[in-house]
Amino acid sequence: PQASLPEPSVIPEQGWHVGHFFYRFRRDQLDAPLSAEVCQQFCAALAPSDELMPERLASYWTSGHEADFGVIVMDPHPGKVNAIHQALLAPGIGRWIEPAWSFTSVSEVSEYVPSVESYRERLIRQGDAPDSPELAAKVSAYERRLPMMNRNRLQPDIPDWPAACFYPMNKSRVPGANWFTEPFSLRNQMMAEHAQSGMAFAGKVSQLISVGVGLDDWEWMVTLWGRNPEYLKEIVYKMRFDEASAKYGEFGPFYVGYRADGREILDHCRMTG
Amino acid sequence: PQASLPEPSVIPEQGWHVGHFFYRFRRDQLDAPLSAEVCQQFCAALAPSDELMPERLASYWTSGHEADFGVIVMDPHPGKVNAIHQALLAPGIGRWIEPAWSFTSVSEVSEYVPSVESYRERLIRQGDAPDSPELAAKVSAYERRLPMMNRNRLQPDIPDWPAACFYPMNKSRVPGANWFTEPFSLRNQMMAEHAQSGMAFAGKVSQLISVGVGLDDWEWMVTLWGRNPEYLKEIVYKMRFDEASAKYGEFGPFYVGYRADGREILDHCRMTG
Amino acid sequence: PQASLPEPSVIPEQGWHVGHFFYRFRRDQLDAPLSAEVCQQFCAALAPSDELMPERLASYWTSGHEADFGVIVMDPHPGKVNAIHQALLAPGIGRWIEPAWSFTSVSEVSEYVPSVESYRERLIRQGDAPDSPELAAKVSAYERRLPMMNRNRLQPDIPDWPAACFYPMNKSRVPGANWFTEPFSLRNQMMAEHAQSGMAFAGKVSQLISVGVGLDDWEWMVTLWGRNPEYLKEIVYKMRFDEASAKYGEFGPFYVGYRADGREILDHCRMTG
Amino acid sequence: PQASLPEPSVIPEQGWHVGHFFYRFRRDQLDAPLSAEVCQQFCAALAPSDELMPERLASYWTSGHEADFGVIVMDPHPGKVNAIHQALLAPGIGRWIEPAWSFTSVSEVSEYVPSVESYRERLIRQGDAPDSPELAAKVSAYERRLPMMNRNRLQPDIPDWPAACFYPMNKSRVPGANWFTEPFSLRNQMMAEHAQSGMAFAGKVSQLISVGVGLDDWEWMVTLWGRNPEYLKEIVYKMRFDEASAKYGEFGPFYVGYRADGREILDHCRMTG
Amino acid sequence: PQASLPEPSVIPEQGWHVGHFFYRFRRDQLDAPLSAEVCQQFCAALAPSDELMPERLASYWTSGHEADFGVIVMDPHPGKVNAIHQALLAPGIGRWIEPAWSFTSVSEVSEYVPSVESYRERLIRQGDAPDSPELAAKVSAYERRLPMMNRNRLQPDIPDWPAACFYPMNKSRVPGANWFTEPFSLRNQMMAEHAQSGMAFAGKVSQLISVGVGLDDWEWMVTLWGRNPEYLKEIVYKMRFDEASAKYGEFGPFYVGYRADGREILDHCRMTG
Repeated sequence: PQASLPEPSVIPEQGWHVGHFFYRFRRDQLDAPLSAEVCQQFCAALAPSDELMPERLASYWTSGHEADFGVIVMDPHPGKVNAIHQALLAPGIGRWIEPAWSFTSVSEVSEYVPSVESYRERLIRQGDAPDSPELAAKVSAYERRLPMMNRNRLQPDIPDWPAACFYPMNKSRVPGANWFTEPFSLRNQMMAEHAQSGMAFAGKVSQLISVGVGLDDWEWMVTLWGRNPEYLKEIVYKMRFDEASAKYGEFGPFYVGYRADGREILDHCRMTG
Repeated sequence: PQASLPEPSVIPEQGWHVGHFFYRFRRDQLDAPLSAEVCQQFCAALAPSDELMPERLASYWTSGHEADFGVIVMDPHPGKVNAIHQALLAPGIGRWIEPAWSFTSVSEVSEYVPSVESYRERLIRQGDAPDSPELAAKVSAYERRLPMMNRNRLQPDIPDWPAACFYPMNKSRVPGANWFTEPFSLRNQMMAEHAQSGMAFAGKVSQLISVGVGLDDWEWMVTLWGRNPEYLKEIVYKMRFDEASAKYGEFGPFYVGYRADGREILDHCRMTG
Repeated sequence: PQASLPEPSVIPEQGWHVGHFFYRFRRDQLDAPLSAEVCQQFCAALAPSDELMPERLASYWTSGHEADFGVIVMDPHPGKVNAIHQALLAPGIGRWIEPAWSFTSVSEVSEYVPSVESYRERLIRQGDAPDSPELAAKVSAYERRLPMMNRNRLQPDIPDWPAACFYPMNKSRVPGANWFTEPFSLRNQMMAEHAQSGMAFAGKVSQLISVGVGLDDWEWMVTLWGRNPEYLKEIVYKMRFDEASAKYGEFGPFYVGYRADGREILDHCRMTG
Repeated sequence: PQASLPEPSVIPEQGWHVGHFFYRFRRDQLDAPLSAEVCQQFCAALAPSDELMPERLASYWTSGHEADFGVIVMDPHPGKVNAIHQALLAPGIGRWIEPAWSFTSVSEVSEYVPSVESYRERLIRQGDAPDSPELAAKVSAYERRLPMMNRNRLQPDIPDWPAACFYPMNKSRVPGANWFTEPFSLRNQMMAEHAQSGMAFAGKVSQLISVGVGLDDWEWMVTLWGRNPEYLKEIVYKMRFDEASAKYGEFGPFYVGYRADGREILDHCRMTG
Repeated sequence: PQASLPEPSVIPEQGWHVGHFFYRFRRDQLDAPLSAEVCQQFCAALAPSDELMPERLASYWTSGHEADFGVIVMDPHPGKVNAIHQALLAPGIGRWIEPAWSFTSVSEVSEYVPSVESYRERLIRQGDAPDSPELAAKVSAYERRLPMMNRNRLQPDIPDWPAACFYPMNKSRVPGANWFTEPFSLRNQMMAEHAQSGMAFAGKVSQLISVGVGLDDWEWMVTLWGRNPEYLKEIVYKMRFDEASAKYGEFGPFYVGYRADGREILDHCRMTG
């Protein structure tokens, strides 16, 4: 079968590499604001030239002492994603910046996204008559929507909203609550319920679930973009009661950020003169 | 439905952003007391000008090695809350200060605060006759008190007492003690019992429960202000036996502080000449 | 009821503030022994003038890499306790000292210390005849001893023995071993058994149990003073089989120290020329 | 029996010492790119002279903030493995490099690799007729393959693929999921199922399982080399549902790396001028 | 009974103080190899003059990034043990050395070492006839061996083998696997089985189990000396299936080291010119 294998490559056939990076400014040797040159280098690292610009990049100032700012980056090439991180730590500006946390993942279409056929079956289970024109219309609409939905999962656009929160998660495997020993049908049903909860926040919260399995210390990375930070609190609180989260979710560190370009981050953090 | 959505904003419709920040002075390069200029900058960071002053701000020296001092800040705008943190780390004073811990949350009216109607039902369950004038009087009093109580939850005043303690908490989700899979009625009953425990400390302890779900690593942040530090010990010990805490409470780091302005903190920490 | 409340104060009505502090010397920039002046400052911090001297203070050099030395301090005023910590970190000596761990607690008379009446009842349960003169004699002796025993709990003297160990603890709240959901009678019985274990070490080990609930990250702090370090090992090992510890005890970091004044600590740690 | 014991030695009779090392560049004092001389020393440490060259050595730039690069090294002599680590920290380059994580293990043939006889028995259990020529052919082929397979386990070649991931693991011993109290037959069966899962990735992923028991903090170290990073994600996700992992696997930190020599690492990390 | 108590002392009546210390060289400010003078001080700290020499001392270079080298020290006086640690951190060499981990314990004869009488009873339970001369001979041999075996437990000689591993452990107290609530007879039986496992490695592995209860963060410290590092792996792996370990053992960090004097450590770590 080796003959039919694709050429070795760092670019996934499906999905993009995703990097989340959080940083603190080093204050312990900082006697004065950063020089104009260093500020310039910082801003350039967050707004690279066309050639170095990854497919997606957004920056945020972040709340609390764990981090001063964060960046989310997406690109087919892992080197292009990590280059943003390396630019922020390059000689010059790098001396004044300390990495606080990061997460390495890839975007994907989850196995719980229903195919057209399984979507049809679910509607029937939920009461639609198998031969009804209503069912046919719904299925047909889903079939038309699915490619764009999947593109949004693999290559999501970053909404122009002011707030975002970021956190990694695992599904638990403790005795009595082991996600990975549950049958697919049950996991699928719980994920559908979970997706339903999220739909109540359409227009208020937009999400990206990327996969860290095999790449970083948690299994998934959750990115929530919010029209208002209170929706971030509300959706996470509400979803915590879904069985998929209540019983099986294990959550890592949370970061909340507010959209800002390099100059705004420097200003908020009083790094400018 | 998007048409009816509010404009994107960082200001919650209900509640304020709350920041708890704890710091240590950096001693490893400190050969002499802080200069008068730096002391001045420190005091100004804790007592900003009217324009920068958030709605609430109180500072404390803290006991033990984890932190030398702490600040609690509240405001509708998250940038105004975090600006206090950034002012303490700004070039000049920032070189001598190391963040030790922080927590990002928002104030809210919890879902367990009874509405007027559910308050009435609870009294009846506890034995009041449905048509009795006593019941009507109690309900009417509650109805009058509720708006002010809710304002105290959303925009609390900081009492003028000398001691305070601060700690974050989760509700557990381990098999056998999973808060989030319990029905609302049971959770509500446990929270009412818990509130009852707290009432025994009226006049001795005042509290703020703010929400970190989706914003920081713990689900709630507890702030207790005490007329005497021994009441802080007593209320936390007593409440630990309530089922809501005994069975479901998971607690993070505790900080105990004593109210002090910038100058008093500097003096206590021997940072002045 | 507010009218009858005591004035706001930082001084508990019962018990003293207790501080345990552990430190390492910073070696990474130390090219030579500490100067005579700095050594002098160190010794003075551990032997303050009468005015600054807290009610109790004892210092120890400690074994292992976590800490070079430790101090236990007790006083009615929390500022006086923490002032010892701040004096060790004050400009001059503070540059060479790094805090390693600390614990903030207050002394108290535990709810499991039997009252005269419950002591009498316990003796009867254990076989004493209710009307016997033996019982009356025992009860009367207990009644005479109790005030002094309680004073020893609230304001303990530090014995003049060479060894001591220090560790914090919690009572567990995991499903299947939840101390806080057990009835008082059962907890009381287990604590009585535990106290009995300790009595076998009379003259060999002396103890202080202070309370950190609401003040620091663990619920209790245990201080054991030993006539010989092997008794510390023996008592902790023996008590670990008591149900109160075996089933419910959760233990934090352990520090073992040997009584030493400032000069002896400096000598042992080779900080003097 | 002592007479028949081999001479004391640091070289195992079977298997090689394996070292995994991960590092960050120290940015906090780096005002300019590393000097040409230091860059040269770095590259030499990763490509030592014949005499110092261990049997296997491969280097990777790594994704995220935990590490900038990593190295895997194998040799019969533990000093030769650790010498690579010491060369990277030697005076000159060592000042600019901070170790982030490492793992010490040895290669082995696991007790779950079937012998020829147990391979034959397994095939019979799976339906092969004991006297069939098909069975004989399969067994004979296995017998021919086994020495080379075992050599690949003890002295594996590193495939020329661009991606790799590295993580340590334990088998759990919690009540209800205790690997070490299961009978060998059950463990063997689960490991066979697990191996089966892996075979689906032939040509896409190649693995080394080395043993850390008694040598480092985890029981096993997993090295996966991938033709494409997405196969790394896929195989780890798929295998997590195998009972051996789902119920018993405990996983440590994950590092993902991309094959690079010293110069490429320096360039990616912007350490060159 | 106080009259009959021994004088206060830091020297145990039985057993020696044991110190395990692990260190890293500080590379972040090291521009050149250590000076000859500092190297000399390092070697002298590991080979002190007769007066300062503790009863036992052995040093090792260690594998991996956690530590560069380690020392095990034993003496009746705790100050003499800790003095080795302090000599390594003394002004001069101390600037270049960072403690990585340590453990404080004392040697003892475990309560599970059978007395002559219980040894006899065990043999009878295992089938020896109570009046047989074989039994008498075995018991008599045990009686002759026991004092020397106990001396080896209290004051062990360090074998002249090249490899060693070091790790601390606890016995678990979780619901369902609580060592400390098991009866002595069952614990004794499991420890006998465990000792039996170890005997298979006679001549290959030698061990010291010292006690940290009340003195450090783990209950026991295990030191294994190996004729070959692969025996260390083998014995720990084999013993992990014993019920005493499989069900009740909790293990801390593992360090593996190779016997080396001061000069050899400096050379391996490239600290010499």
